[in-house]
This record gives sequence, structure tokens and C-alpha cells, in this order.
Amino acid sequence: MIKSIGYAAKNQFSSLHSFEFERRDPNPDDVVIDVLFCGVCHSDVHQVKNEWANTVYPCLPGHEIVGRVFSVGEKVTRYRHGDMVGVGCMVDSCGVCESCQEGLENYCSGKHGWTATYNGPMKPDGTNTYGGYSNYIVVKEHFVLSIPDALEPAAAAPILCAGVTTYSPLKHWKVSPGQKVGVVGLGGLGHMAVKLAVAMGAYVTVFTTHKEKEDDAFALGASGVIIESDKAAMASQERSFDFILDTIPQKHDVNPFILCLKRDATLCLVGPLEPLAPINNQQVAMGRRCVAGSVIGGISETQEVLNFCAEHSIAPNIEIIGIGGVNDAFKRIEKEDVRFRFVIDMQTLKAEAATN
Amino acid sequence: MIKSIGYAAKNQFSSLHSFEFERRDPNPDDVVIDVLFCGVCHSDVHQVKNEWANTVYPCLPGHEIVGRVFSVGEKVTRYRHGDMVGVGCMVDSCGVCESCQEGLENYCSGKHGWTATYNGPMKPDGTNTYGGYSNYIVVKEHFVLSIPDALEPAAAAPILCAGVTTYSPLKHWKVSPGQKVGVVGLGGLGHMAVKLAVAMGAYVTVFTTHKEKEDDAFALGASGVIIESDKAAMASQERSFDFILDTIPQKHDVNPFILCLKRDATLCLVGPLEPLAPINNQQVAMGRRCVAGSVIGGISETQEVLNFCAEHSIAPNIEIIGIGGVNDAFKRIEKEDVRFRFVIDMQTLKAEAATN
Repeated sequence: MIKSIGYAAKNQFSSLHSFEFERRDPNPDDVVIDVLFCGVCHSDVHQVKNEWANTVYPCLPGHEIVGRVFSVGEKVTRYRHGDMVGVGCMVDSCGVCESCQEGLENYCSGKHGWTATYNGPMKPDGTNTYGGYSNYIVVKEHFVLSIPDALEPAAAAPILCAGVTTYSPLKHWKVSPGQKVGVVGLGGLGHMAVKLAVAMGAYVTVFTTHKEKEDDAFALGASGVIIESDKAAMASQERSFDFILDTIPQKHDVNPFILCLKRDATLCLVGPLEPLAPINNQQVAMGRRCVAGSVIGGISETQEVLNFCAEHSIAPNIEIIGIGGVNDAFKRIEKEDVRFRFVIDMQTLKAEAATN
Repeated sequence: MIKSIGYAAKNQFSSLHSFEFERRDPNPDDVVIDVLFCGVCHSDVHQVKNEWANTVYPCLPGHEIVGRVFSVGEKVTRYRHGDMVGVGCMVDSCGVCESCQEGLENYCSGKHGWTATYNGPMKPDGTNTYGGYSNYIVVKEHFVLSIPDALEPAAAAPILCAGVTTYSPLKHWKVSPGQKVGVVGLGGLGHMAVKLAVAMGAYVTVFTTHKEKEDDAFALGASGVIIESDKAAMASQERSFDFILDTIPQKHDVNPFILCLKRDATLCLVGPLEPLAPINNQQVAMGRRCVAGSVIGGISETQEVLNFCAEHSIAPNIEIIGIGGVNDAFKRIEKEDVRFRFVIDMQTLKAEAATN
């Protein structure tokens, strides 16, 4: 076993504290990764606080992981010591169901579904998984991504969740040049959605409740910004969008956005896990519209979005913090006080451990 | 003006009574139709009772109309005296918007949208429209359908609403041979959905709350029947459907049906106009599923479904009533006591008028 350290929460009322644990010895198809950076996703906050009522403690979050290969199992062919690699939200799946065979491990319909990088009680052997707020992680080669040289490693981290979560639906619903695309919410996911959709050639309009995010939206490449409380502005957008991606993580009213869809267009929700406020079906039906959902993306799509970002010089806007600042970062995320993603420099964890 | 008679409700507390009114003199592009049969749609009940809070009184319902051409305006080219024709839910639309140009008048995005056959306050001149529970109707040629000889006229009537409302989404979402299709609710719309999907080569499973409808479902061609309260049976259907058409007209919980969809499959609601109970977005997103809606169908699709029914020997199961029985029929519809559509023999209206 590999002695490891990380930051974990003991229970739902606890903040994150230093935590010692063991990683498995690598199997022949495993890659051992020396973690350099880990993004702080809004779902880390939800999970640590048990807001989805499924957290297994201790909870050691982090699923936007970038690091260097430390060692590889004997059957590993694609990576070797020193390679810059990444790990996203998944570390395993059944591998044999139709979705896995199609490279959509995120829709694995195997008995246990896919195994989450942390809080993975779906894992067949029943043990928990621990995420990237740690010094090392051991991951099956299939779930390890290659970080293109053109990407700055710290900034690459959020692509592994925020990037692929928005890229996958933009691609699935065939966002294409000249289309009008809406992005609801301008946080970690929303800001990546804007950059990616703009790079795909779309005209992007951001819907936000925060007037002060207007300049940010334009700086990210948006062509328009609508403040949701401005009813006249909302009305001016009716029936005009080819696709709207809703990234708001909380329960909210999606009916105003449904009205903004053209006939046959889709509103895709990637944020909220809880039940939505009731949808007015008359508005859906009157335009043969769709309300859909999407969850992260497959492994091949994750590689694709990393390569896409490298090719289009897209990088998440990040604020680098030390591991000691993670509890403050959680509070700032809850106050939406981040532009747009915190990334933990994991050298600070190692330094902290060395001084203790 | 053409002196006409019909059955209308004076207010939301009134039953339907004999009513005298005038139809417009035909314009050059109008067809005057001697109404022979008119189907009784569940929405007639909703509308007469103002359950959608938009009824304009007097309300003279009926949008499943079959009759013979009495006369035509000078510019009418497709019909002549004596032809068997039909009129569905629409009698006009803007004609110039993208949807109208594509033959999807049912999604007309013109200023007033499409004009409903009855209770048409969207009509540009602000006057109400009166439906098919009457002896004559005057309709613009474009909105008049040809009833194929192979269809029995009385049974053809429900195809004009129940038929096209279910045919259009089955076709739009590309239901094809070998697919597993669900139909929720076995009323006027549901029973047509079963017949049409079976004719398209699908294996159809009916979801119903009524155990006593099981035999009916099989008789209509269904391969399976699930009683919604049977949790084990519902669980056995998870992730197995390529498409589900939900025909329930009341607000209800659609979450159990979402679970039954395969990855990337759609649940389409054609029934409820009121807001739905909250949808669990986690279930939608976990399978990249869609919840969609659809409203009737375009004029060319309406002709298509009439021809499809003629070709596949499909006819709605009807119970013919006299105009005097329409108020009882409304009560029986509310009790779901009809297999599966009442159709009014409009000769009884004419006979009643002759004796008064």
C-alpha cells in the first residue's frame, strides 16, 4: 500500500483537515500519479456538506486532477514516468455495457455504474474512493488523460470536469457556427461553456442574475448578456435560441429559458441534481421543445476537450490557492466569489506535511 | 352569412345546448362543409368547463370534423361538391413564418399563432371561432383534409386530432421497426398511439393505472401492459424504452417514466397543458434523456396520418352518439368510461332542429 496524505472532511459539519490514508498498490493496468494541481468544483462543496445525502465519510474530494506519472503497472502502454496526465470524475466503469463500449463510460449501465473519483460507494467492493486533494492517486490507465503540452498544467485541471461537462452537451446537441447559444449561469461551468461554444463558432448569450458579471461575460467572448430579472430583456429573447446550456447548480425555475428556445431546440441542464420546479408543459409542447440533462462526458470526449482547448488556446480562468486555503475557498464558492475556478497547488500539501 | 345551428355552452357552469349562429359567407379560398360526424375530444370537456382559463363563451366545441363539401369558393382547386373532407384543430395560421412555410402550421410563430377551430380568440380579427358540433362549417381550403375512401367517415373523425397528435411525435422522434415504444394512458389519444406505433413496426407497451384496460391494450396490438402501481413491474422496465409517448391529460408525475427510457431516449408529453410535478433532473441527466412536448401536427402530417390509417386499415374505436347525448358523453369522458372515442352523428342535430 502507498502511504498518502490529503485533506478530508470527517462528517458533514466538519471542514477539511489533513488526513492520512493508504492508496492501493498499483495493479498491472494502473498508473500512479504525483498530484500537482486539483481544481475545486462546486460539487466538492455539495459533497463534503452531504447536500446530496449520499456522502460517505471521511470525504476526500477532488476530481479535476493534474499531475505527473510517478510509476506505471506492467501492462500500461500509453504512459510512462514523468508524463503530464489528468484524472476527471471517473476512475472505473463496467467496461462491457453498451455505453462503455461506445466510449460513454459516464452513462455506464453496469450494475454499479461508473465509479466516482471520490465518494465512490458505487464501487463494486464497497470501499470508498478518495479524490485529488491528496499527494498521490492510483488510477486505471483507461481513466487517465494525457495533458497536451500546450496547456498550462494548473489551468488544465478544471477542463477535466467543468470543461468536459459543458463540451459534451455542446457537441451532442451539435452546436455549430452561426448558431445562437445560451449559457445560464456564469460560474466554473458557465465560463467554460462560453469559451467552448464561442470556439465552436456560436454566438453566445449569457443569462445571469449578477449585473456585475456582465463585463466578465463579454471578456469571455459572449455576444450578449441578459440579466434574468429584466423582464423586457428576457422577452426580447423568446424563440431565438438554437440551444441553451443551463449550468446553475441549485433548484431553479427553468420556464423562462424554455420560452427562449426556437422550435425543436433543447434546454440542457448540467447543474441541478435535485428536482426542478415544475415545468410548464404547454410552453415545451408549443415549440416541440426538449428539456434534457447531461452528466460530465466520456473518457474519449474528455481527451477530446483537452485537445480542443490546446488547439483553440482555451484555458479556464483560475485562482491558484494553497491547500490551507481550501476551506475559505469553499465559503467563497458558496458566495459565488470566484472568477471562475480555484485550483489547489498540491505542492503546498506536500510542504505542509514536510513541516509537520 | 350562413344561418347555422350547433351545440354550445353559455358559460363554464352550463351544459351544451342548441345554439343558433351565423357562419361567414365563403371567401374565394373557402370550402363550405356539411358536417356529418364530429369526434368528442377530452379537450372539448376542458374547454367548455374553462379548465384552461381561456375559454370565450359561447363555446361551441368540436375539432374532429368529417363532412361533405357543400360548396367551394372560386379559387378552391382541390375540392368540389360532394367530396368527403375533414377539419382538425386548426382553421388558419399566418402562412408566412418559418414553421408555416415548412408545413408545420401547428408551430406557427406568427403574431397570433394558429387559429383554433373553436375557441379561437387568437384569430386576428378578435372574433371567436365555432367548432364542429354544428351543421355547417366554413374553412379555408388549405386547412381542409381529404378523407380517403378506405376510411369509414365516422371513424375517420378522431384521426383529425387524436390521430395526428400521436402520429406527429411518433414520426418526429423516428419510431421504427423493432423499437420498444411506451404509451402512457389508454384513452382517445393513447389507443391511437398504440395502433399507429404498432403499424410503424414498434413493440408497444402500455402504461395504465386501470387493470381493466389490460385486455383492451392487447386487443389494440400492444405487446405488454404495465400497471403503474405495480412497482416491481415498473422497475422491470427501467432503461428499456426507445421512446415513450405520454397522453395523460392531467398533471401527473412523469419521473417513473423517465427511468424507463434508454440512454438518449425521449419522453414526449402530448397531454397536459398545466405545469407538471417537478422532474428529477438527476434521472434525466444520468441517461442524457429528454423530456419533450408536442402539439397536434401540421396540415400535411394530418393528411399523411389519414392516408397512413387508410393504408394500414387503422380506425379509431368509436361509439357513435346523437347530439342529445353529448352532455352525458362529457360526463363519461371524465369518468374515463369510453372505449375510446365518442363521435357525434350530426344528422341527429339536423333532425332535432327540424322537429323544433
